[in-house]
Formats: sequence, structure tokens, C-alpha cells
Amino acid sequence: MYRSHNCGELNESHINNEVTLSGWVQKVRDKGFMVWVDLRDRYGITQLIFDAERTDQTIFEQAQKLGREFVVQVSGTVIERASKNPNLKTGDIEVLVSKLTILNEAQVPPFTIEDETDGGEELRMKYRYLDIRRNPVKNNLIFRHKVTQEVRNYLSTSGFIEVETPYLIKSTPEGARDFVVPSRMNEGQFYALPQSPQTFKQLLMVGGMDKYFQIVKCFRDEDLRADRQPEFTQIDCEMAFVEQEDILNAFEGLTRHLLKEVNGVEIEKFPRITYDEAMSNYGNDKPDIRFGMEFGELNAVAQHKEFKVFNDAELVVGIAVPGGNSFTRKEIDNWIKWVKRPQVGALGMVYSRCNDDGSFKSSVDKFYDQDDLAKWAEVTGAKAGDLICVLSGPKDKVRAQLSALRMELAEQLGLRKPNEFAPLWVMDFPLLEWDEDTNRYHAMHHPFTSPKPGQLELLETDPGAVKANAYDLVLNGNEIGGGSIRIHDKETQALMFDYLGFTPEEAKAQFGFLMDAFQYGAPPHGGLAFGLDRLVSILGGQETIRDFIAFPKNNSGRDVMIDAPAPVDDTQLEELSLKLNLKS
Amino acid sequence: MYRSHNCGELNESHINNEVTLSGWVQKVRDKGFMVWVDLRDRYGITQLIFDAERTDQTIFEQAQKLGREFVVQVSGTVIERASKNPNLKTGDIEVLVSKLTILNEAQVPPFTIEDETDGGEELRMKYRYLDIRRNPVKNNLIFRHKVTQEVRNYLSTSGFIEVETPYLIKSTPEGARDFVVPSRMNEGQFYALPQSPQTFKQLLMVGGMDKYFQIVKCFRDEDLRADRQPEFTQIDCEMAFVEQEDILNAFEGLTRHLLKEVNGVEIEKFPRITYDEAMSNYGNDKPDIRFGMEFGELNAVAQHKEFKVFNDAELVVGIAVPGGNSFTRKEIDNWIKWVKRPQVGALGMVYSRCNDDGSFKSSVDKFYDQDDLAKWAEVTGAKAGDLICVLSGPKDKVRAQLSALRMELAEQLGLRKPNEFAPLWVMDFPLLEWDEDTNRYHAMHHPFTSPKPGQLELLETDPGAVKANAYDLVLNGNEIGGGSIRIHDKETQALMFDYLGFTPEEAKAQFGFLMDAFQYGAPPHGGLAFGLDRLVSILGGQETIRDFIAFPKNNSGRDVMIDAPAPVDDTQLEELSLKLNLKS
Repeated sequence: MYRSHNCGELNESHINNEVTLSGWVQKVRDKGFMVWVDLRDRYGITQLIFDAERTDQTIFEQAQKLGREFVVQVSGTVIERASKNPNLKTGDIEVLVSKLTILNEAQVPPFTIEDETDGGEELRMKYRYLDIRRNPVKNNLIFRHKVTQEVRNYLSTSGFIEVETPYLIKSTPEGARDFVVPSRMNEGQFYALPQSPQTFKQLLMVGGMDKYFQIVKCFRDEDLRADRQPEFTQIDCEMAFVEQEDILNAFEGLTRHLLKEVNGVEIEKFPRITYDEAMSNYGNDKPDIRFGMEFGELNAVAQHKEFKVFNDAELVVGIAVPGGNSFTRKEIDNWIKWVKRPQVGALGMVYSRCNDDGSFKSSVDKFYDQDDLAKWAEVTGAKAGDLICVLSGPKDKVRAQLSALRMELAEQLGLRKPNEFAPLWVMDFPLLEWDEDTNRYHAMHHPFTSPKPGQLELLETDPGAVKANAYDLVLNGNEIGGGSIRIHDKETQALMFDYLGFTPEEAKAQFGFLMDAFQYGAPPHGGLAFGLDRLVSILGGQETIRDFIAFPKNNSGRDVMIDAPAPVDDTQLEELSLKLNLKS
Repeated sequence: MYRSHNCGELNESHINNEVTLSGWVQKVRDKGFMVWVDLRDRYGITQLIFDAERTDQTIFEQAQKLGREFVVQVSGTVIERASKNPNLKTGDIEVLVSKLTILNEAQVPPFTIEDETDGGEELRMKYRYLDIRRNPVKNNLIFRHKVTQEVRNYLSTSGFIEVETPYLIKSTPEGARDFVVPSRMNEGQFYALPQSPQTFKQLLMVGGMDKYFQIVKCFRDEDLRADRQPEFTQIDCEMAFVEQEDILNAFEGLTRHLLKEVNGVEIEKFPRITYDEAMSNYGNDKPDIRFGMEFGELNAVAQHKEFKVFNDAELVVGIAVPGGNSFTRKEIDNWIKWVKRPQVGALGMVYSRCNDDGSFKSSVDKFYDQDDLAKWAEVTGAKAGDLICVLSGPKDKVRAQLSALRMELAEQLGLRKPNEFAPLWVMDFPLLEWDEDTNRYHAMHHPFTSPKPGQLELLETDPGAVKANAYDLVLNGNEIGGGSIRIHDKETQALMFDYLGFTPEEAKAQFGFLMDAFQYGAPPHGGLAFGLDRLVSILGGQETIRDFIAFPKNNSGRDVMIDAPAPVDDTQLEELSLKLNLKS
């Protein structure tokens, strides 16, 4: 037996008990006649004391030589501390050690195992097993476990069945790029790793398993943006015999449960807005609604004056920055510089100060009088003391720019509070989106999403206007889930594939099994998938998903700890009937 | 709203209620003036009634045309049945339909959706989504969900944290063949899919996460034997600061919990036997102990007589078949033929009938008298009415042969009862096993298993005799879990790699990260992994794991439903810097 207790549980009630503990040496303080050691395990820290008078000399000398991160086992007596530490669960006691065993020595770790470490990102990733010893990372992993357990128990109690779908499936050119897996037993053929279990969960619906979920790894071979992982985890859900409303209620229930159980936050009912509203009010399909600063469209009040920039713009749109009139001229100039950065791309920014006396002072006073500016304030909801920021240009671009500004302002002003939670549904997404690269429409969600009833005909005349029964669940400015009502009849599905540029042969080769399935009695169905990594990090009050993944990959898709990917033996390639065909 | 109730819940208490149901048409009985339809969903079957007198004529005619597996929605009134069906949860009522909507038509399914179907294996796999509608498959999947939920809740309550480890890792030539995944972003390099999260769970122990579990997919590119899948699921567990005893207790607790919750079977304490005992008593390291027929080694009593076959044999060993004296001569001859089949490979079988009067009649009466045969009976534990079956030959071979005979006899005699559960631990496995193909020792468990204390030195002199701190959990003749105490210091690990034929460079290239980790304070640790597919099928009283997997692959590793694996586009290969190098 390596321990009778863990390092987080001893308190006054254990005084005079003989205990055995095991753990890591966090810190050694050697006063010559007395040595204190902080012993750490997953559960906490317990102070050990070695006393030249009371401790066997050999053990005392051993204790003096203990290094950081040594693994030791000690036995001794729990005694009351002379100077108590109220910040520590075990702060009332210490253990007077009578037996010490060094279970394993340790080299000096490459960074300090402290909440605030001196280790940089790369170093911490290379020695991730040491990073995990640190409270912030360890607690994130435990938090993730807690969230997934809550999800599983909630859904199971609601009648959902977790079904494992296969990882070795078939590659389809639609959507993002697949990771493929050469098959040795089927020469020249490949499996693909799933980007999501989409078609399988739909087949489960055809199979009558009417409430399905799965917490499952998914894979996308995309060029990685910051904080994107080639493998990621979804809470994948599907229901049959449901309308959109049933699905929204089911997963609003789950999310409400999580917010309550995990964060102690009660939210009555999630607001719902349409995609179009989200775009016009926030310039963004995943708006952070924890703070105001809704967009005010100023075309009607700012155009048809002498100011050509606005007159020529498709959209003139502004936000009221609360308390923004306190910005100095220099600060405002910095914000103008900020929106002109290439990453944002605005050509400039017009502003109007809302003075406490009700007057306005704008950067375009030459063209707009006080009455004009009062209308700006009305439209943007600006009050005395605020600052109105106005951008103009092509609608889609200027919305994206103003959204970026809004988010950055909120960040800087401390309005994005990590412990405040504001979920909402964004509904009625467009079915298709135009892709500049390929010069054709793509499915915005995926090709299995059903158009809104009666809109199928619009595909012929105005494909971009067709709305889908598709919805995203947004939390604090992040999409945490998305889903749709699916097509469940072969004809509509064939039509969709046709629309997305599949020949009937391609559709059959790639998704024939699904269209076949639709012929044997497919029920109406729909679902939703949560991005677990994102969900957990937001519930945890953070935004970096990597901090909630035990062994993440870096931005080149590498695991720097195990040094993967790596070359493989020629014999392995030969068995797979493959040859390298290097470009460089 | 598609339904107010499901098809499994209406009973007498609902009579006169207006209800809406959705589901599949299981059966239509058209009596001309009356049509009955069995409506099925995941929860059960409800009888619908359409009555020429009481039902609107259009609806009545529609009902007459309903085909099997049509998806329909109906509304109507719950009424008491004229002839009740006590075998059906809903057998007291039927629904008099007033509204009928066909949600989707269905072609005639390629096999009947009944508990006993007319569909063969291949057909059922191709249309697995239809197969899943059948109770046996559906219930297996629900059963699997229940088991995994029990596992997760039990382990979570016991302080275990589920941590997701990566799927895209590094290929290592040790052990079975890896599936590899070419990396596009790292030209000429490959990830591998994990055969198990072994090294990652050990790194979690180094990271202080002292109780880990994960229900996780694993992958092995092996030539598939019957009922083996290229992807399979493990309950993977690891603990730090534990001795073997702690691990056995922890997972005996889990297994006991499952047997109780899932099967209603209470088992006090699992027996433990050593590997050596298992081999000598059952000829098998995963003995089925639900029935006796333990091996009796007969060398001492059957050798040194005139019978050369036995005299020349390394091992003479027999079992007592309970009641086997009732076998006819022909039946015994058939068993002799059975052991001589190439799959078993015995050269012959000697037998001795144990007559009711206490006398014996053997096939070798020429060489053995009644006293000799009485000793055989004593050693094998045979009683009057039994049959003693004796094989002889080289020890390892003859044990395997007699084990095969023992299992087949038990099967035929109905001694392997699916609802009886007899778990046991098999302990002290050899550390190494000799591999005829490569002419060297391989790790029997894996190269991270620690030898028993004090046996490390034996590696030099008698490597085959070194025992490991390795154990298997066996249930009803199947290994359902296996594990070991791991090596946790760099020196021993390096020694093991050396022993297994790794050069120091190879060891560093493949497992350098683990040996590095061992230098930074690795705690003593060990663990166990359950094969979930096998575990679930045995708890479910069956032995075919495929029946408990939603979308299994066939023996060529193909998913015949989606037709994977499949060729991929040339552009995909080019992006991956690969070329096909076909042999045929």
C-alpha cells in the first residue's frame, strides 16, 4: 500500500494519526535544524516536517537532499502546525515523518511546476506530462471530465443512447479535406477518418434508434489556424420524429443543465434570432450578446449629405461605445489605426463624441450638424458619455469590420466577462453559400440539411436566398453547437447533390448507401453537434481549447512530445502498396 | 409535434385519450371491413385499428395500401382491445385511427424486420440500418450503452478521470501492425492510429493524474480472424501509487458492479490462479471454470507400462467427462475424429469408461488393468458414469488439444450456460514468449510490463522463466481484460528494450519521450484494459462481438454498407505526396 491518504485530505481531525502519503516534492525548505517539504499529488499539498531532534538522522539527511519533483513515500504522525495556512485545505496540520522512501528521483524539470510557470508554450508541450502536473492544466482536464459526465448522464436520462460509429469510413470530396488511411488488405484502397459521424447518425435514425448521441473524435486535414486541432471532439446528437422546435428544446435543456451544474448559472430561456438579424445587428453569425453595442444602420440618416464616402457606401453602420467619450484623442486615433490594420481592413473610421451636455463632436462636423448627429445617436442607442464609431463600405465587409471592432472594444473595456454566460440560438441559416474559389454554391452546413418548407423552388431562381432549417447555438461569441433538420427523402437529397455539382454517378458512389436507406422508410429527423473542446473551454471561462486537451498538437499538426508524425519503414509502405512521391 | 406517446407506453390507463404516434408499419392485417396495423418504434409495438364503419373512408383506403416499413404518423383514440395480448406491453389497448399521414414510403425490405429474420449475414450487414430495426440488434446496442454508462459512472464515482488521448500518434514496429495516416502538412511523414493509449496513459501517470480511464477506439491492422475487428473499443485504465493488489481490487470491484447491475448476479470474490496453474489445470490461460473437467496429469500413473505412446510422451493428461459413459461407441469415435481434425491436431485419443459398478473399460485394456484405470479416475476426478479422455504428446501441444476438447465437450453438453458467470484472475504471466517466426523473445503483454521483483536477473540466464506482474481477467472462457504493473524507471525500461532486440537508437527514436518522462519523477503505476466489445457480448450472454457493434466490418476489414475502403482521387494522393505501388 503506497498511501493511506492523499495529499489533499488531512486536517485537524487526523491529528495524532499515523499516515502514509505518496507524491511529488514540490518544495524543500531547509533551516538546518528543521526541514519542511511540500508533498504534492493530484488532490493537494501536505506539509511534511523533518526535525533534527525528533527525526532519525539518516532520514533527516535524506530529506535535506530531496530535489524538486522527486517521488517519495512517507509515513509519520499528523501533528498540528505551529503556523497555520488558511489558504490550504491541509493548512492546519503537518506530518512529522518517521519513514521516507524515495520511489523515484527526478532531474530538475525544464520549467517550474507552479500555477504561474516560467515555461513557454513549446517547452510545455514537449514536456506535456510535466505541464499536466500544474494545477491550471490538471484542473482543466478534471473539469472536462466533469462536463462530459454531466452531458452523458443528462442525455442518458433523457432517453438518448450512445452508439459508437466507425472511425474507418469512406473518403468524400465534399466539405473539408479528409485524413485517409491506406488499407493493406484492400490494395490501392483507403479508409477515411470521419469529419463527423453525420451519415452514420442519420442511418441510425433510419434504423429506428430515435435518440442518439456520441462523444466522439472527429478529424479534419485543414491548414490549421491558431487554436484549431486536426483531431477534435464532438458531442454528436440526432433525433427522429422531431421538428426543429423539439431539437432546440432538447439541447437548450442540456446546455441549461450544464450552465447550472457546472457554472451555477440559471438561464430561463435562450433568446433566438435569425441569421439575418445576427448579421445586421452584430455583423456576425455568432454574436456575443453579453454587452450591447448593437449595430445601428445609418444609411437613412447619414447618406444624402455632402460626405461622399458615406454617400457612395452600400452600408453606413455604427455602434455606441459605452463611456467611450472618455477616450483621449490619441486613444481614438489608435482605434482608427486598429480598424485600418490589414487583418480588419477598414479604410477609415468616423466617430462622434456624445458629450455630457447632450452635444456632439464628430470627426465629420463639416458635413453633419448637431441634429444629424443626434439621429446617429438615436439609431445606435448612444447616450451622453458614449462614443459613436461608424464604418462604411460594401455591406458584408463593413459588417465584418465593425464586428471585429465591437469585439475588440468589448475585450479592452472588460465587457467580455468570463463568468457571465449569454447563450442564444441563431436560426434560419442560408442553405447555400457562394464560394469565390470554385465559383459555385456550397452547402453552408452540409449537403444533408433540408431547406425550409416551400423554399425548395427558390433553388432555381435565387439559390442564395434559400433558408435552411439550420441553427447554431452560440455562447459568449462562440459557436458551441450547430445542426439542422435533415433531408429524409431520396428525391430531395438527389436534387441537393445535383445542385451542389455532383453528377448522379458521383452522388451514388459517395452517398448511395444513404439514398438507398432513404428508400426503406426514413423518418423525419434532425440533430445537432457541439464542439466539446470549445464548449468546455468557454464553460471553464477560457477561450483557448488547447488548454483543455491533454495532448494537443501544434499549429503544424505535430505532437512535439512524441514527435509525430514521423517517417515509416519502407516495408510498411510496401505492405500498403504505396511509394513516397516527394515534391521536395 | 410528431408524437404524444411512443409505441411502447400506452395501456389501459390511457383509454379514451387522444394520442398521436409515429413509427414504422410492422404488419397490416386487412379483413376487408377492418384493418389492423402494428405500428413499431424503438419502444415497442402498438396496434392501430381502422374500421370501415368508424373510420373516414379515405383514411381506411389509405390504410389498406400501407406497406411494410412505411413511416406513418397517426392520431386517434385509445380504446380497449377486444382480444388482449398479454405478451405485449401495449396488449390491452389499440388506437382507433382518425388521422393518418404517410411520412415516408418504403420499398419492400430485403429481409424481414423480425426477431428471427430471413436475412443472411452479408445482406444484414449491407443494410445494417434495417438490421438495427430488429429487436435483437437494437437491444444489444441499448445494452452496450447501459454497460458503458455503468462503467463510466462507477469509475467516476471511484475518483477516476476520463481523459481523451490522441488518435493521431506515432507508428512503432513493436507489437501488431499499425494503421498509418499520411500527413499532408508534414511531407513524407505519417501518423499512426493507436493500438491502445498505452504510452499516453503512462504519461498521464507521470503527469500526476493518478486514476485515469477512457473508453476508447483502438486499431490493429491484422489479418482478421473470425470475430475480430480492425477497430475495437477498450475500457482503458491506469492507476499510480498502486501495487498489483490495488489494481485487482479496483477492477474486480468494477466487474462485480457490472455483473450485479447488468446481470443481477452477485459474486463474492474472484478466484485467482497463476498462469502456470491455468495451463496445467485447463491447458489454457483463459479457462472457463463454469464446469469442472480439470486436467489430471497421468504421467506418474500411465507411464512405465507397456504402452509406448504414453511412455514416449512428454505429457499424458486426461479429463473426466461428466456422464460421458453414456456416449455410444460411435459418439466416442466421433470425438476421436474431432481431436484428430487438423485444427486440433491430436494423433489419437485414449478413453476409459467408468461403469456404474465401479469397473472400467478402456481403449487400452491391453496395457492397463483395473487398478491402473482406477488411478486414472482418481487423478482426473472421474466418478462412475463418467468418461475419461486422455491425450498425450509434447506438453504445450497436448494441453492445447485437450483444452479444445474440453471446451467443445462442455459446449455440446450444455455446460457453458450463458446466464452463469464465473470470473477469475489469471496471474503471474511470463514476461516473455518465444516467437518461432523471428526466433527471439517477444514481450508477452507489452514492453512496458515490469518483471516480478527480483526476477530481472533471470533475464540473463533463463528469460522464458521470468514472470511478470501481469494479470488477465477471465470471464466464462474469455479474456475480458488484461494488464500489468509497469516499469517506471528509465534503466529497467532501457534493459527491457535491449532484451527485446531494440538498439539504443531505436528505443530512443520510438519511445524516447517515455524514457525521458521516467527521468522527471515517474510514480509506480499499473493498469488494465478491458475489451469492451467482448465484455458486452459476454455480459449479454452471447459470444459474437459483431452483434454488439452498430456498424461492424467483415472479415476482410470492409464496411459492406458504405463500401469502404475505396480508391481515392489522384489529387488526394498527390497532396499527400504518395503514389500507388500496386503489386497486382
